[in-house]
Amino acid sequence: MYRRINKFIPGLKKNKIDAFIVYSPANISYLTEYRSRDSVLLILPGEAFYITDGRYSEEAGACLPGLTIKKITNSFPETIAGICSRAKCRSVGFESAHLSFAGYQRLVDLMPAGMELVPFTGLIEVLRQVKEKSEIAVIRHAVDIAVEAFEFAKSYIIPGKKEIEIAAEIERFIRFQGASCASFDIIVASGPNSSLPHHMTSERVIREDEPVLIDMGVEFQGYKSDLTRVFFSSKINFFMQKVYTAVLNAQKAAIKKIKPGVSLKEIDFAARNYITNRGWGKNFVHGSGHGIGLDVHELPSISAKSGHVCVPGMIFTLEPGIYFPGKFGIRIEDNVLVTDKGCEILSEKLAK
Amino acid sequence: MYRRINKFIPGLKKNKIDAFIVYSPANISYLTEYRSRDSVLLILPGEAFYITDGRYSEEAGACLPGLTIKKITNSFPETIAGICSRAKCRSVGFESAHLSFAGYQRLVDLMPAGMELVPFTGLIEVLRQVKEKSEIAVIRHAVDIAVEAFEFAKSYIIPGKKEIEIAAEIERFIRFQGASCASFDIIVASGPNSSLPHHMTSERVIREDEPVLIDMGVEFQGYKSDLTRVFFSSKINFFMQKVYTAVLNAQKAAIKKIKPGVSLKEIDFAARNYITNRGWGKNFVHGSGHGIGLDVHELPSISAKSGHVCVPGMIFTLEPGIYFPGKFGIRIEDNVLVTDKGCEILSEKLAK
Repeated sequence: MYRRINKFIPGLKKNKIDAFIVYSPANISYLTEYRSRDSVLLILPGEAFYITDGRYSEEAGACLPGLTIKKITNSFPETIAGICSRAKCRSVGFESAHLSFAGYQRLVDLMPAGMELVPFTGLIEVLRQVKEKSEIAVIRHAVDIAVEAFEFAKSYIIPGKKEIEIAAEIERFIRFQGASCASFDIIVASGPNSSLPHHMTSERVIREDEPVLIDMGVEFQGYKSDLTRVFFSSKINFFMQKVYTAVLNAQKAAIKKIKPGVSLKEIDFAARNYITNRGWGKNFVHGSGHGIGLDVHELPSISAKSGHVCVPGMIFTLEPGIYFPGKFGIRIEDNVLVTDKGCEILSEKLAK
Repeated sequence: MYRRINKFIPGLKKNKIDAFIVYSPANISYLTEYRSRDSVLLILPGEAFYITDGRYSEEAGACLPGLTIKKITNSFPETIAGICSRAKCRSVGFESAHLSFAGYQRLVDLMPAGMELVPFTGLIEVLRQVKEKSEIAVIRHAVDIAVEAFEFAKSYIIPGKKEIEIAAEIERFIRFQGASCASFDIIVASGPNSSLPHHMTSERVIREDEPVLIDMGVEFQGYKSDLTRVFFSSKINFFMQKVYTAVLNAQKAAIKKIKPGVSLKEIDFAARNYITNRGWGKNFVHGSGHGIGLDVHELPSISAKSGHVCVPGMIFTLEPGIYFPGKFGIRIEDNVLVTDKGCEILSEKLAK
């Protein structure tokens, strides 16, 4: 079968289940090394079923030799229940964070009497948070394209341009550089809009002496990058400069902490503490970062609640920010790889 | 409060619940008439709570007067359980198709003893399938921009261009026309790739005498359009022409059936029967269409299983297709509004 599926199979016995249903598209993509859509992966000790519908079965058949492709006739739960029933499974694990309660109810109704459904969370996500060499290479490339996109975008950040026009130019550019799409809707937030951490790019026209925050990443071979920079349409005023420097130093303080074994809580604290000490703690309204990979937000989380420690091969964002509602906001976001001795900033080339 | 929320409130009593939790972003957007992200809407008879995190609370506060904005401190379930507990709710409904099983478990754990969670599906979706005048106007505009994008794209469909380059030009164009983004990843499928109904736009270079299928729509003020046309890079051969004509006639047969009271099953059958009679029934591997609106796939479904009938104000796609695996495929997709007497093809201007 597949290397990553094979590696997962001993987990069936360990968790006392006869089969496991994978619902998360990113987890299915990870296990099959194929960009999955609208599918379910059902893993039994001796066989793995890739279940999909008529829109995808032709492609799946060609791309996934060694997996049993099942085209659903009526519905996913019926097909899943049918396979589990024929295999005489007694206990079937499933990804409870990726199946709706309604989906669970339908599956329960269809499962033969005596068959038990066992919820699990994070079984595959935990494997995904430490990247393999081949994954690092692909993410590196996704970061490189995003860096090029920021360089390209600079010339458009001038008074008179609309936020959405800058996003439009970037959307075009990244595809010509080999990206399949943006990791998420590109954020271009000008002037007061920059105070909204997840501003929805609008028709607003950029004015003189304004900050313009751009948060974007690209998808390359299924893997995502995610970077933020703040540019200025013309002059930067003294207060904004002061805030900018604080965010930059907070990020530096966090980056300095990164090495194997250090808790991610501590890394978050380094950035947060720097900002809090300057009196802006309540203006830093989100976590310091998150893992990136097949999902643009994945494990680990770099926040006060994070329970993980740095492991070589982890790749995450570091993105402290300070926001003044209705006025402006500054966020600086890089993508960082944990190495054996410390870390490498994958987006180092992009000036800040 | 809000017109659509007020209209929903009698449903609480009717369904014997003291509160209702809305999880679907599109349903929240519908009820609040605000483009919601990462939020939960909790409706009680006298008050509605818009629950979100620090990244969105500033914007939500400014845009949603009359709703109580709750910024979560720890997690969504804790905030929800807190409000329901203080309001002494005994029975709380929730959208079971939009809450994960894991999310349900967390909520159950946090709810006070004796409080019951009651699953519901489709309560808001059913309201959304018949569009109000203001919604029709917005969708009409989303269709118009998509039509312009197809006209614009035509000049790029020439041998030597890559699929992804055409998608790139369209992505840029639609934003300059006022769209916020594409409804979904734009599909440009050339030559044999057109036989995959949901091909992932690739680096493939278009050759002479090939079909190039483009499936795209745009989002405008939260509402989506969704159209498909097949162009030819140069000449079209006789067999492809024959298939193209069959798809077009199948679509015409279906459109002819549309009027209030007619079952959507019957409309699907009209298209399917036409194609089956020409011997290509097994090559039409998907339904005939789906509703569009705040989601690009929503109710009603136009398929053999659909239980709905046409109602004035419904807007859906009609998209028969014939696919020859590994060879080519043809799909033609328009957006149709059910009127009092029949229907209006919103994308009529786009030649086929």
